[in-house]
Amino acid sequence: MKILDEVLIKNTISMEEAIDVLRENYRQYNSSNDSNPTRTIVRVQEKHATFGVMPYYSHSHNLFMVKIVSHHLLNKAHGRTSISGVIVIQDGATGQIKAQMDAAAITALRTGATAGLATDLLAMAHSKKVAVIGAGAQAMAVFEAVLSVRKINQVAVCSTSRASTERFIADAKNRFLREIEYISHHSARQAVSGADIICTATTCAAPLFSACDVVKGAHINAVGKHTLVSREFPLELLHRAILLVEDRKAAIEEAGDYHQNSTSIVDMLNSQYAAHQGETTIFSSVGTAFQDACICIAILKKLKLVSEV
Amino acid sequence: MKILDEVLIKNTISMEEAIDVLRENYRQYNSSNDSNPTRTIVRVQEKHATFGVMPYYSHSHNLFMVKIVSHHLLNKAHGRTSISGVIVIQDGATGQIKAQMDAAAITALRTGATAGLATDLLAMAHSKKVAVIGAGAQAMAVFEAVLSVRKINQVAVCSTSRASTERFIADAKNRFLREIEYISHHSARQAVSGADIICTATTCAAPLFSACDVVKGAHINAVGKHTLVSREFPLELLHRAILLVEDRKAAIEEAGDYHQNSTSIVDMLNSQYAAHQGETTIFSSVGTAFQDACICIAILKKLKLVSEV
Repeated sequence: MKILDEVLIKNTISMEEAIDVLRENYRQYNSSNDSNPTRTIVRVQEKHATFGVMPYYSHSHNLFMVKIVSHHLLNKAHGRTSISGVIVIQDGATGQIKAQMDAAAITALRTGATAGLATDLLAMAHSKKVAVIGAGAQAMAVFEAVLSVRKINQVAVCSTSRASTERFIADAKNRFLREIEYISHHSARQAVSGADIICTATTCAAPLFSACDVVKGAHINAVGKHTLVSREFPLELLHRAILLVEDRKAAIEEAGDYHQNSTSIVDMLNSQYAAHQGETTIFSSVGTAFQDACICIAILKKLKLVSEV
Repeated sequence: MKILDEVLIKNTISMEEAIDVLRENYRQYNSSNDSNPTRTIVRVQEKHATFGVMPYYSHSHNLFMVKIVSHHLLNKAHGRTSISGVIVIQDGATGQIKAQMDAAAITALRTGATAGLATDLLAMAHSKKVAVIGAGAQAMAVFEAVLSVRKINQVAVCSTSRASTERFIADAKNRFLREIEYISHHSARQAVSGADIICTATTCAAPLFSACDVVKGAHINAVGKHTLVSREFPLELLHRAILLVEDRKAAIEEAGDYHQNSTSIVDMLNSQYAAHQGETTIFSSVGTAFQDACICIAILKKLKLVSEV
C-alpha cells in the first residue's frame, strides 16, 4: 500500500497537469463508467464539525475509492488546517488497498484544477487582475490554478483578518516566483473592484460583495460555502451572467434551485462556446467525487500503480 | 497515526475481552450516544464483488469511524481472503486520523464476539458439542468465541470442500490448545446432528440443514449470508425457537420481515431471561457498526490512544 502525503502528491502532479487531467476526463465523460453513491454527511453542531464520506467506483479502472474528510471550523483558531482526512483506494478486482492519499491535498488540488479549467473556458484571454477572497488552502489552490491559465500581474487579497491575508500573500510570493503585484484589502468589495477574475473560497455562505462591484465580463470562481438559497456571490449577478457548474443535478441538489439555469462543464466543453462573449461568467462549485477520482487515478498512473486504460 | 494490522489487533485484545466489551457496551447502550448513518453498498456483479462503507460517530468518545470493506467471492479460489479493508478512526475534535485498523480482523473479532455473547446468553450451560458450517475467518472467530463461553469437547466441521475443512481443523488445533475432538463432515446435516451449538458462517443464503436435524434446545449462531427471505438456517425452526438479533430495525431491514418476531441483545440483557428454558435459540446476525466501534474503542483504550470516559 502506497501512502501519499501532501508533499508526495505535490511532487507527483502539478496544477497544470491536474487541470489537463480534468479537461480530458470531462471531455470523455461517460456516466456509465462510474458508480457515484450519495455522499454521507455527519454534522456535529456542538463541535462545529462536519464529517463526510464519499464513495466512488470507477468501472474503467476497476478501483473503489472512499474519501473520508472532516471540516472543523474552529481548527484555524488553534493553528490547525480545517480539512483533514484520507482517500482510500481499493483494487476492484481483489479488494487489496492500493494507496491512501491525503484528502486535504487532493481536495485542494481538484478544487483548484476545476476552477482553473472553468477559468480557462470562460475568463477573458487578457485577464490580468485577480481578486482572491479567502486565505485558506482552497483559496491558494484556486489562485494557483488561475495563474496556470492566465497571465496575471496583480492580485488583490482579502480574508477575515489582516494576519491571514498577509500570511497568504507571503506564502504565495514564496510559491509563485513571478512578477505579480500583491495588494492586501480590508474589504472584499474593494478587492473585487476592477478584477478580471474573482475567486471566493470562504466559509461565508452570504454574498461577499455586490453585483455593482463586479466589472462586466469578469469571471467568478465560487468554491466556498453555500446554502440552498445563498452563496458567496450576489444572486443578482445571475441575471447577466453565464452560470457554469460541475454537474447540474449535484449543483441543484446541494446548492439550490437557482442552478437550474446553469451549464455543466461537460456541455460547455462539447459546445461551440469558444471565445469570451463579453458576459460576466460564474463557476459555482460544489466539488464532486469524480474530480477526486480523476486526480487520484492520474497520480496512480504517474506512479505506475495503475495502467493506462 | 497508529496502524494496526491483524497481528497487532490480536495481540492487543483477546476474544474473551472482546465478548466482555460487547456485553458491557450493549448493557449500557444508549441510542443518543451515536450517529449511525445508513451504510453504502456498491455491488459490482461482473466481478462478484461488494464494497461497503459504514460511517459511525461516537458522541461519548468524540470519534468518527469509517469502515471500508470489500467482499470478493472469487478471492478464495486465488488463495486470497475474501474480506479486505480498513477502519479509519478520526479524532472528532480536530479531524486528525488517530488510527487505522485492519477491517477484516476487526470484522471477524466483532462477529465472533457478538456470537460469543449470544451463545453465553442462550446456549445450554452444559453445551459440549459444536457444529461449525463454513471454514473462513468468520467461522474461525465464532468458533473461538464459543470456546470462550462454553466447555466444548467436540466439534464437527463442514465446509464447501474437504481441503478447506481439513485446513480449518488444522488451524484450530494449532490455535486452541485444548482437548477437543475434531470431526470432518461432508454433509452439514450430519455435522449439526446432535450438536448443542451450531455455528453457520457461509456464503450460502439458503438453509444448510433441516429443522429435524437440530436437537431441541440447541443454540444456533447464523452469521453468514442471507437474503430478505432466507438464511442459513431453516425458517421452519422459528416456530419453536427464540430469535435474537443485534438490532431489530437493522435485522428486519437487512435480513427480512421474519425478524419482526425477534428480541434484541439489549432487551435480552436487560430482561430477566436468565437460565436456558429448554427452547431452541437462534442468533441471526447482520453485523453493526456499533460492534466495530466498541471493539475499536476498546483497542484504542488499551493502547492509551483514547481515555476512559
